[in-house]
Amino acid sequence: MDTAAVLLSGGMDSATLLRYVRERLGVAEVHALSFYYGQKHARELDAARHQAESAGVASHRLVDLSFFADLIAGASALTRGGATVPDLSDLDDAARLQPSTYVPNRNMVLLALAAAYAEGHGVRDVFYGAQAQDEYGYWDCTVDFVRGINDVLGLNRRNAVTVHAPFAGRSKADVLRIGLELGVDYAQTWSCYRGEARPCGTCPSCAERKKAFCALGIEDPLARLT
Amino acid sequence: MDTAAVLLSGGMDSATLLRYVRERLGVAEVHALSFYYGQKHARELDAARHQAESAGVASHRLVDLSFFADLIAGASALTRGGATVPDLSDLDDAARLQPSTYVPNRNMVLLALAAAYAEGHGVRDVFYGAQAQDEYGYWDCTVDFVRGINDVLGLNRRNAVTVHAPFAGRSKADVLRIGLELGVDYAQTWSCYRGEARPCGTCPSCAERKKAFCALGIEDPLARLT
Repeated sequence: MDTAAVLLSGGMDSATLLRYVRERLGVAEVHALSFYYGQKHARELDAARHQAESAGVASHRLVDLSFFADLIAGASALTRGGATVPDLSDLDDAARLQPSTYVPNRNMVLLALAAAYAEGHGVRDVFYGAQAQDEYGYWDCTVDFVRGINDVLGLNRRNAVTVHAPFAGRSKADVLRIGLELGVDYAQTWSCYRGEARPCGTCPSCAERKKAFCALGIEDPLARLT
Repeated sequence: MDTAAVLLSGGMDSATLLRYVRERLGVAEVHALSFYYGQKHARELDAARHQAESAGVASHRLVDLSFFADLIAGASALTRGGATVPDLSDLDDAARLQPSTYVPNRNMVLLALAAAYAEGHGVRDVFYGAQAQDEYGYWDCTVDFVRGINDVLGLNRRNAVTVHAPFAGRSKADVLRIGLELGVDYAQTWSCYRGEARPCGTCPSCAERKKAFCALGIEDPLARLT
């Protein structure tokens, strides 16, 4: 594989994925794609820019989907106009199956756009940083979701694009371990769903991040900001 | 079914579908969605507006994806910056499988956005006017494509949206017959891929349209413009 596209949010998983594709898989020409879809934590996009530069990508494109938060009628706590982001500890078992931070069908939208980009540019492989959260989950981060998307894309009669999600089914601690080996600078990633000046430390994303660093017995460089 | 979303391009098939959903299926609250993705025949969107009004939809939203033509690097003859639209007669058998007028992964993008809209608004059903072209084809208009998309959407743990494509696998003449019964005004639809003042009469879309009217032995109201 000489060239690939990588979805880059600016969080830990996609930042790790980018380096993984560049260095572990040795893909020479990597095109990073980031999306603004009205997420409250749009500051993750600054981290995405930093990671793209430091990984030496061939290109980094920010796709403006600022209409998206309105398209979904504020139905996500993650986007502008949506409910308040909950703490992970607020979520009961039923809520953890599909928390209010779930963004309706966002991941199919982003993967569909990434596959369109790839097909248009003659790139056959798209990488997606989906990772199995330990304590809550999203259907559109699962192995079954990725398999289903590939079943559809495989119907293309000429230039089928394949989505790879090498971290799907792995824990965030596993991803962190890989990233540390690859020298990812986690001070330059952003996870907190609240997107304020400092990570809140309690939202579902902060809680997962904290757990991953704890599992490896190391300090999160962003924790100093908390 | 009390409410549904309908993808409305402004062409014959989706204009018919809209009336079909409103009148044949009796869905009281229909939300139409149209998309500008850099198509050369953006004038189809005027037809979409007309059809939405005349069908009495609850809402009609135009989603601006004007970045899309650039995202796919001009890889479609249908969009700004792409190659010249071919005549149907220019296409050999291989080209007819996936002509240059195919837009990379557009339909997955549009359906993913429509499903996001539907899920956000508490709508469970999305209608898609895919129809089996007789003489050429697109993989993302097939029954298998729709089935695959539904397999993916069905993984949603709470609010699975279903895509319905009642015309997939039917001929354009069949669709036209249904639309005439429903009183669709085909003078207020637009098919020509070239998107100039008058339909060219020879592009793949004009050729299919012509064939459908011929099959029913009636005159296309737009033919007077040709």
